[in-house]
Amino acid sequence: MVKKLQEDKIKLGVCYYPEHWPESLWEDDFKRMKELGFTYVRVGEFAWSVFEPEEGAFSFELFDRAVNLADKIGLKIIMGTPTATPPAWLTKKYPDVLNVTQEGITIHHGERRHYNYNSENYRKLSSIIVREMVKHYKEHPAIVGWQIDNELNCERDVFYSESDHFAFREWVKKKYHTLEQVNEAWGTVFWNQTYSDWDQIYLTRTTNQGSPNPHHALDEKRFISDSVISYARLQVDIIREHTTKQWVSTNGLFGHLNSHQLTNELLDFFAYDSYPNFGSVADDKSEKPLRDRKWSWNLSVVRSISPNFAIFEQQSGPGGWVTRIGQPSPKPGQLRLWTYQSIAHGSDMVLYFRWRTATKGTEIYWHGINDYHNQPNRRVQEVDIVGKEIEKIGEQIAGSEFFAEAAIVINYDNDWDGELDEWYGPYASKSKNDWFKAFQYSHVPVDVFHLTGDTTVEDLRKYKVLILPHMAIVEKETANVLTDYVKQGGKVVFGCRTGYKNKTGQTYTLPFPGYLADLTGITVEDFTRAQPFDDITQIHMKNGKAFAAHDFNESLQLNGDHLEVMATYANSYLEGKPALVKCTVEEGISYYFGGVFDLEIASMMIDELALNNYNHLLALPENVELSIRRKDGENYIFLLNYSDKEQEIILKQNMQNLLTGEVIYEKVLMKPFDVLVLK
Amino acid sequence: MVKKLQEDKIKLGVCYYPEHWPESLWEDDFKRMKELGFTYVRVGEFAWSVFEPEEGAFSFELFDRAVNLADKIGLKIIMGTPTATPPAWLTKKYPDVLNVTQEGITIHHGERRHYNYNSENYRKLSSIIVREMVKHYKEHPAIVGWQIDNELNCERDVFYSESDHFAFREWVKKKYHTLEQVNEAWGTVFWNQTYSDWDQIYLTRTTNQGSPNPHHALDEKRFISDSVISYARLQVDIIREHTTKQWVSTNGLFGHLNSHQLTNELLDFFAYDSYPNFGSVADDKSEKPLRDRKWSWNLSVVRSISPNFAIFEQQSGPGGWVTRIGQPSPKPGQLRLWTYQSIAHGSDMVLYFRWRTATKGTEIYWHGINDYHNQPNRRVQEVDIVGKEIEKIGEQIAGSEFFAEAAIVINYDNDWDGELDEWYGPYASKSKNDWFKAFQYSHVPVDVFHLTGDTTVEDLRKYKVLILPHMAIVEKETANVLTDYVKQGGKVVFGCRTGYKNKTGQTYTLPFPGYLADLTGITVEDFTRAQPFDDITQIHMKNGKAFAAHDFNESLQLNGDHLEVMATYANSYLEGKPALVKCTVEEGISYYFGGVFDLEIASMMIDELALNNYNHLLALPENVELSIRRKDGENYIFLLNYSDKEQEIILKQNMQNLLTGEVIYEKVLMKPFDVLVLK
Amino acid sequence: MVKKLQEDKIKLGVCYYPEHWPESLWEDDFKRMKELGFTYVRVGEFAWSVFEPEEGAFSFELFDRAVNLADKIGLKIIMGTPTATPPAWLTKKYPDVLNVTQEGITIHHGERRHYNYNSENYRKLSSIIVREMVKHYKEHPAIVGWQIDNELNCERDVFYSESDHFAFREWVKKKYHTLEQVNEAWGTVFWNQTYSDWDQIYLTRTTNQGSPNPHHALDEKRFISDSVISYARLQVDIIREHTTKQWVSTNGLFGHLNSHQLTNELLDFFAYDSYPNFGSVADDKSEKPLRDRKWSWNLSVVRSISPNFAIFEQQSGPGGWVTRIGQPSPKPGQLRLWTYQSIAHGSDMVLYFRWRTATKGTEIYWHGINDYHNQPNRRVQEVDIVGKEIEKIGEQIAGSEFFAEAAIVINYDNDWDGELDEWYGPYASKSKNDWFKAFQYSHVPVDVFHLTGDTTVEDLRKYKVLILPHMAIVEKETANVLTDYVKQGGKVVFGCRTGYKNKTGQTYTLPFPGYLADLTGITVEDFTRAQPFDDITQIHMKNGKAFAAHDFNESLQLNGDHLEVMATYANSYLEGKPALVKCTVEEGISYYFGGVFDLEIASMMIDELALNNYNHLLALPENVELSIRRKDGENYIFLLNYSDKEQEIILKQNMQNLLTGEVIYEKVLMKPFDVLVLK
Repeated sequence: MVKKLQEDKIKLGVCYYPEHWPESLWEDDFKRMKELGFTYVRVGEFAWSVFEPEEGAFSFELFDRAVNLADKIGLKIIMGTPTATPPAWLTKKYPDVLNVTQEGITIHHGERRHYNYNSENYRKLSSIIVREMVKHYKEHPAIVGWQIDNELNCERDVFYSESDHFAFREWVKKKYHTLEQVNEAWGTVFWNQTYSDWDQIYLTRTTNQGSPNPHHALDEKRFISDSVISYARLQVDIIREHTTKQWVSTNGLFGHLNSHQLTNELLDFFAYDSYPNFGSVADDKSEKPLRDRKWSWNLSVVRSISPNFAIFEQQSGPGGWVTRIGQPSPKPGQLRLWTYQSIAHGSDMVLYFRWRTATKGTEIYWHGINDYHNQPNRRVQEVDIVGKEIEKIGEQIAGSEFFAEAAIVINYDNDWDGELDEWYGPYASKSKNDWFKAFQYSHVPVDVFHLTGDTTVEDLRKYKVLILPHMAIVEKETANVLTDYVKQGGKVVFGCRTGYKNKTGQTYTLPFPGYLADLTGITVEDFTRAQPFDDITQIHMKNGKAFAAHDFNESLQLNGDHLEVMATYANSYLEGKPALVKCTVEEGISYYFGGVFDLEIASMMIDELALNNYNHLLALPENVELSIRRKDGENYIFLLNYSDKEQEIILKQNMQNLLTGEVIYEKVLMKPFDVLVLK
Repeated sequence: MVKKLQEDKIKLGVCYYPEHWPESLWEDDFKRMKELGFTYVRVGEFAWSVFEPEEGAFSFELFDRAVNLADKIGLKIIMGTPTATPPAWLTKKYPDVLNVTQEGITIHHGERRHYNYNSENYRKLSSIIVREMVKHYKEHPAIVGWQIDNELNCERDVFYSESDHFAFREWVKKKYHTLEQVNEAWGTVFWNQTYSDWDQIYLTRTTNQGSPNPHHALDEKRFISDSVISYARLQVDIIREHTTKQWVSTNGLFGHLNSHQLTNELLDFFAYDSYPNFGSVADDKSEKPLRDRKWSWNLSVVRSISPNFAIFEQQSGPGGWVTRIGQPSPKPGQLRLWTYQSIAHGSDMVLYFRWRTATKGTEIYWHGINDYHNQPNRRVQEVDIVGKEIEKIGEQIAGSEFFAEAAIVINYDNDWDGELDEWYGPYASKSKNDWFKAFQYSHVPVDVFHLTGDTTVEDLRKYKVLILPHMAIVEKETANVLTDYVKQGGKVVFGCRTGYKNKTGQTYTLPFPGYLADLTGITVEDFTRAQPFDDITQIHMKNGKAFAAHDFNESLQLNGDHLEVMATYANSYLEGKPALVKCTVEEGISYYFGGVFDLEIASMMIDELALNNYNHLLALPENVELSIRRKDGENYIFLLNYSDKEQEIILKQNMQNLLTGEVIYEKVLMKPFDVLVLK
Repeated sequence: MVKKLQEDKIKLGVCYYPEHWPESLWEDDFKRMKELGFTYVRVGEFAWSVFEPEEGAFSFELFDRAVNLADKIGLKIIMGTPTATPPAWLTKKYPDVLNVTQEGITIHHGERRHYNYNSENYRKLSSIIVREMVKHYKEHPAIVGWQIDNELNCERDVFYSESDHFAFREWVKKKYHTLEQVNEAWGTVFWNQTYSDWDQIYLTRTTNQGSPNPHHALDEKRFISDSVISYARLQVDIIREHTTKQWVSTNGLFGHLNSHQLTNELLDFFAYDSYPNFGSVADDKSEKPLRDRKWSWNLSVVRSISPNFAIFEQQSGPGGWVTRIGQPSPKPGQLRLWTYQSIAHGSDMVLYFRWRTATKGTEIYWHGINDYHNQPNRRVQEVDIVGKEIEKIGEQIAGSEFFAEAAIVINYDNDWDGELDEWYGPYASKSKNDWFKAFQYSHVPVDVFHLTGDTTVEDLRKYKVLILPHMAIVEKETANVLTDYVKQGGKVVFGCRTGYKNKTGQTYTLPFPGYLADLTGITVEDFTRAQPFDDITQIHMKNGKAFAAHDFNESLQLNGDHLEVMATYANSYLEGKPALVKCTVEEGISYYFGGVFDLEIASMMIDELALNNYNHLLALPENVELSIRRKDGENYIFLLNYSDKEQEIILKQNMQNLLTGEVIYEKVLMKPFDVLVLK
C-alpha cells in the first residue's frame, strides 16, 4: 500500500505556539491566518509541561481554548505529541531516560531531544502522555491528525545509554540467535574480537582511534532505526486504538532512521521540514553548487516514501540558532519559490514555520513569517500572494504525481555502511550529488528510488534508467533483479566500488563487482585510490573527449564480446586500460564506469542515455528547474528560477500560465526567483 | 568614589620568587634592582606550600628573610595571597575544591588555577592562610600592599563543580525568588524547559550541539562574576579587618568577571598584567592590524576602572609556555616602548615580570629581564634606561589623567550575552576593534566607558562623542539616559543590531532598535546576514564615496523629517534603501548605521564627528600613537612609535622633550620603537 | 653484545591467519608460498580466543594442524604471542586491564591494543597464555622463533589506568627515593606544585590548557617505556626459561618506547613493520618531500638497534582501515622496490603482510599480496620476481652491514622532552628530516646513532661526522665525550637550541649551549623565534651565498680566535651578527649554526664536510638512493629508483649487476621504481 497524503486541494498552514504568546493575541493571529488562506495550524509538539505540569497531573485547558478558538475561526489543527522535549521533572526523576554519548557523557535537560528510545521509563511515560492527549482530543472536530514526536533523530542520531546497550544486546540475540552467528556476521575472528557470552555484547564503545568494528557498527545503525520505529509504534498504536478519523504522520529525514519502513509500517503519509536556506550557508565548494536547489533532492527522497506528502515546516524567513547555522534573509521571492519547490516535488500541504519569531530561547533568530513586532512585513505579503495563487490552482494540482523516467537509487544499508567506510561512502555522496545536479541542469526530471531486498522487477520497470553509483553492498538477489530489469529493456549505470560487499559489510571472495559481473560484462582487474600529488587521472572517450577521473580508478577486464569500451585511461599506470564499458544484455544496457562520477561525466552519460529533457517543448537555462506533476493524463509543468537574475526561457508551443490564466509562447522572461506553473 | 592608584611619583619594580632561587643570590639581586631604580618587589603569590607546608602548620621564615633583606636594601614589598595555586596536600585531601569541566572532567593539580570559588572547603582554607599571612605581615614596614590571588579567571573562566551547581541554585533563588520568575527570565516555555522545582536548576550542562538556553547562559556568567567577587571579598575583608595601612588590589582583566564592580566594592585600585608581545603571535588577519598596539585598548579598559592604575606584570622578554603561545624576543626598544605604553595610558606603577627567567616548570620560556645565566643582557640595559628616565619625569607626570573627548562604550551584559550570540557578538568585537584602530590611526585619543544601569547623564557629559556599536541589550532606562545626553549636546553612534534585547537577552516585541527608535529617528525595515557567495554589499554616501558593508545589513525606515540619509545601499536587494542616518535631537546628534563598522567607515565617521586630532600641534604618521595625560592644566603628550622603521613627525610649535630636556620643533625623526614625552 | 639477526641467507616469508580462512584453503596457500620462495610464515599474534576460548581452557588444535601442514610443505613458523588483543571474556571479567585516557575514558574491547601494561591481572593472564603456548610449541621443529605481542605502543602510547597511576608512584619512589628529590627534579617550586606525600603523586592528569609540568611529563614517558619493557620481560623470561632453540623478537618502532634498551635487554634482534606507502598519504608539504623514501630513515633507526634485522611486515598492497589512512595501490614495481629498500638498509628477513586481504574487520582494505578473490594478480607476480632474485643473491649479501661515514644523532630523552616543548622539538624534527633528505639527495650514505650516557669515544669514532641538530638536553658527560671525539679528529654539527637543558628538562644557569660552549667556541648572545609577519631572516655566507634562516635565530658571541665566522645575519635586528661559526679543536672541527636547518643549508654543510658521495664510482640523479652493504671487504651497492620516471645513471667503472649477472658500465637507464644491486 502506498502511504501518501490524500488532500482534495493543496492546503497551506502554519506552526503556532499558543503557550508562548499572551492569550490576547490568539484571536487576531488566527484571523490573520485565515485571511492568508491557511487551512491548518500545527500545535503542541513542545508542550509536555503544559499538558502534564507534574507527573500524573494533566491539564488541557490552555490548548482547549486555543483549539476551540481556531475551530471557531475555521482553522484545522494538527496536534503534535510532545515527546521531543521531556519536562524537567521527568529527566530529574528518571535520569535513565537521558541519552549518553559514546564516551559516557550524559546529554542533559537544557536543549532538546536529550532522551533515548529504549528507556523503559521513557516509553512508559510517553505512552501515558500520548494516551491522555488522544483520549482528550480524539473526538475534537478541528483536529485532523497527529504528528508523532518532532524530527526523530534530529540533533543526534546515536544513542549509548545503558538502556540502549541492553536493548541492543536483546536485538542482537533476536537477530542472530547464536553467538556463532554474531561472530560470523561481525567478522570477530579479525583482531580477536570473538564473543563467548552474550554479556560481552555492547553497542560500539570507545576504542583507540575511534574506529569500531565496521560490521558491528552497521548493525548498530540498523538497531537505532529499529529503536526509533519501535518507539514511534508505541505512540501510533495508542492513537490508532482510539481513533480512525485522525491521521498519523511525523516530520523528518534524519540519520540512522529508515523512514520508508517507518512510514510503511506506521504512518498514513510522510512529512518533511524544508529549510532550503541552509543551502546559503552550506560549505559547498563544488562546481556550480546547487545551494537551495539541493532541497529538490531532499524532496525527491521524501517523494520516494510518499508520492504526495506534507511539509510540516516550510522555511519562513532567516533561520538560525543563537549559536550557529545563522542564515541570511530569504531574498524577495524566495519564500514563494521554496513553497513551489515543495509543491512541484509532490507536496500537497505546506505549513510555514512559524507564525511569529520566538522572542526567547535558542531559536530567537529562526524567524517566522511575522517578526517579533507583529507589524506588516514583506514575508507576510509574499505568503499572502502564495495563498491567493494556491486558491486558484490548488484543486487541479492536488493528487497529481511527479513524473520521471530516471531514478537515482539509494538504500539504507549502503548509506549507513558507507558513513564509516571511506573507501566508497564519500564517493557515493559525491556522485549522487553530481548526478542530481546533472539531471537538474539538463532539465531531465529524476526520481529517487529506494532499493530493498523486496524490490521486484515490476517496481523498477517504472523507470527507463537507474543510476547506482558506488553501491558496495549488493546481494545476489538484488543483482538478479537488476539483471532481469536490464534484460527487459532497462538501462543501469554503475560506478566503481560496486557490488563487492555482502549485507554484513564483509567483502565477497569474488572479483569485483561481485554478483554484478555478468550484468556488467566486466571484472575489475586493478584499482587504486588517487594519490594527492600525482597528476589527475584522465579518461579518453572514443569520440576524443577527455574527462577527469578523480578519487578512485578501476581498470576493467572485458569478459565477452558483447561489450563496448567507451573510454580508456589516458595517463597513470593504468594508461590504455578500459575505464567505461557499455554492455548490451538482451533488451537493455548496463554501463560500468571504473571511477567516481562528477558533473561533467554525469552530464555526458545523460546525453548517452537519451532521456526526455522536454526540449521539444521548452528551452531552459541552467538556473531554472523543470518539474512535472501529472494527473489524469495532464502534465503540470513547474518552472522555478533559483537565480537572482532574470532568466529567458523559450516555450515552443502555447502554454497556459496557471497562476495568471494567461497563455504564453516563445520568449518569456522569468523574474528573479519567479515561478511558472504551466499546462 | 573613584578607585585609583595614588602615587606621588611613577614607580618601577619587579616580580621576584625568593623561593625559587638559592638564598645566596638574593642580596645581589635586590641590590641590582635598587640600581635599576626599582621601588617595588612583588612576592608570594605562588608560595602557599612555603607558607603552609602541611595543613595548619605555618612557616614564614623564608619570606621573612627575603622581605627583611629587601627592606634593608630599600625596596618595598607587594605581597600576594597564594590562593591561585592550592598545595598538593590540599587538593588531595579536599577534592571538592577542584574545578570541573561542563562534561564532568576534573581539573587536577599539575598546572594552576584548578580550584573553584564556591567550595566551602576552599573558602575556609583560603581564609585561614590569608588570615595567617595578614596577621604576620600587617605591621611589616616594607610591605605596602596586597595582591589578592593572581589573575582571577585566567586559564579558565567557567566552573562546573558540584559546589558551583549548588551555589548557582541558591544564587538563582536569591535573584528570582520564584520559579515563575525563573521560567519567565529564561524563556523556558521554549522547547519545554519549564522548571517546576528548585532541584531541577543547575548551571548549564552538556546538551546536544553544546548549545545551552541563552538566557540561562547569560545568568551563568553573571553568577561566575559574583562568585569571583564573593571569593575575593572573603580575602579582602580579612585584610581590611587587620590593617588600614596596606592597600589591596589584584591583577587581571579576564573573562566572566565584572572588574569594575570588583574594584568598586573591594579594591583600592585595579592592576593589570600587560603582555603586548602576544600581539606578535595573535592570528590577526585584519587590515592594518594593531598587534602590540592593541594593548592600548586593554589599558583603556583598565583605565575605565581606575584612571590611574598599576601594572603588576609588564612583559620583560620573549614569552611563552613550554607547550604554547611562544613569542619572539622583543626587538631592541620594545620593552621601553611597552613600559611607556602603560604609563601613557594612566599607569603610575610598572612592575616587570620577572626578575630572572625560571629554570623549571611550564614557564621556562617566559623570560624575565635577566636570563637564566644571570649575566648582562640587552633587556636589563633597556630597563636601566627606563629607570633613569622615570627618575626624571616620574614626579611631574604621576597623578595626571588620560584625556579624551570620545569614548567607546562597553558593558558586561552585552559582552557576555554576545559571547554566545553569533548574531551580534562577533560584530561588536569587530567593530570595537576597528573603531579603536580608527581612533589610533586618526590620532584622536579615546577612552573606554563602562555603561551600567546606574550611569547618569553627568557621567556621560564628560565626552563629546560616544560610540556604541551593536549594543543589543538596551533597557528603557539606558535609552533615556542616552537620549538626555544627546539632547544636551552629545553625539552617539550606533551600528546595526542595537537595542533589540532586554536584560534577560530576550527580544523586545518592538521594531528595532527598540527603545532607541526615537533617539535614532529610524526603525529597521528589513535586515539580512551577508551571504558568503553574494557580492559584498556596498553603501554610497551622498558625497559619492563608497564603502563596503560587510556581515550584516539593515535597511532603515525614516520616522520623521529631522533626519538626513547619509548613505544608501548601492547593490543587493536593499539597493536604494537608507543605510546610514543622521538624526538631530535638540542640541545633539545620533547616527545609526545599519551595518558593521570597519576601519574605513569608522575613520570616515571620526572625520564627520569633528573631534580634536591635535593636528594644530602635530602631524603624525599612522605608526605613531598619540596619548595625552593631563594634570593641573598641563598636557603631557606621549608619542609612541610601534614601527621598526624611523618615523618622521612634525611639531607645529616648540615643545620640550621631557626625557632629554631639549626643546624640539618642526621635523623630528623618531627611531624605531622610540618614545617621546612632550610638554 | 650487538643484537642482530643471524641468517645465512636473505629469507622471505609472509604473515598468515589460518584462523580466518577455511581449512580447505590452507594446503594450497602453503604450497603457493613455497613456490614463491618463502621460508617463513608468521602466525598467531591475534589468536588468543583461539588458544584460550575461555579462561583456563586451552586449545591448540587449529594451530597444530596449520603448523604441521606448513612444516610438511617445508615452511618455518614464527609464532606470535597473542597479547596485543585480549579476548572479550578477559576484558569483561577483568576491566582493570583496560587502558584509560587522561580524561578518564576507558578504551574498550572492539578494536585492538586496549590494555595497559601495569594491570596485575593482565600481567598474570598474559603470563599464563604465553607459558601454555611456549610449553606446547617449544619443541616443534618448524617453529624457529617468537614475536612478543604485536607492535607494542602502536595505536596509543599513553596510559592512565588506575594500575598505571599506582605503578608510576612506585616507579617514582624507586627512582628518587625522597620527595625532596622528586620536587627538585620536577621543579615543583614553580606554581606551588610541591609534593608532601607520596599519595599525591600521579601520572599527569587533566589540567587547564592541557599543559602538564614538563619535567613530570618527561618522567612519565620514561615510565611508559619502562612499563612496556617490564611487560615484555615477563613474556621473554617465560620463553627463555623453556627454550634456547627458538629466538625472541618483536616488531615495532612506536612512541614512548626505548627500543634500543628493549632489544639490548630482552631480544635476539629487532624487527620492523615497513609500510612506505604511508608516504603517499602523509601531509608533507616540504620542499622535495621524501615520501616512501622517508622509510629509509625509519630503517636507519632500526639499523641503529640491530645492524641486521627482520621485517615482520612488509607492505604488500594498498593499505588502509575502513575509516582512515587509505592509500593508493603501489604502482607496478613499488612492492619490489620497497623490499629492496628494507634489504639495502640491513634487513636479512622480509615477511610480507599479508598473504590474502582480510574479508572482514577494520582492515579489509589493508591488502595482502593476494586479493579477496584469490586469483592471480600483479602483486603476486611481482613478489615472485623478488623471490627468484633473492634466490640468486640472498646468500652473498646476508650478514653484510650498511656502511656510512656520517651519522645523525638521536636520543630518547630529547625526543620525549621535545614532544612537549615547542621551543626545540619541532625544530629537531624538521632538521633531522632535512638533514636526512640532504644526505639522500647528495648520495652520502648516513647512519642514525643513538647517543646515551654510556656512549664512549670509541663508539663515536666509527663516524667521521656527527649531526646533532637542536639537542637541548646535553649533560656534562655527553659534552665531554663529544669534545674528546672532536679532539681526536671528528666533526660535529650543532644547530640552535643545543645544550641548554639537563636530564630533568630544566635549564642550566649557563649561557647557551651550556657545557658545549668550549667545544663550539661560542655562546649565544641573543635569540628570537621568528615572527610570522616579519621578513624571513637571511644569512650571508662569506662566499656570498645567501640562505634563509627560518623559525629561530641565535646570534653567536665568539669566545676565542680559533673561530671562523662562516655566515652572518643579513637582515632583522640581528643584522651583522655571527650566525654560523666553525671552530677547530685539536684534530677536529665543530660547527654551530644559530638556526634551524633546512634542505639547502644541510646540503651546503654536507659539501663543507667533504664526505664520500661515491662520485668516483657513480653519477646519480636525486631520485635514486644509494646504499652500500659491506661484508668481507666487498661492497654491495644498492641503487633504488623511487621515481615513476626512467632515470639515467653513470657507472664510472665496470660493475656486475647481481640480479641479472651482467656487467654494466657507463650510461645505464633505470626503469621506474627499478632496483640495481651492484658489485
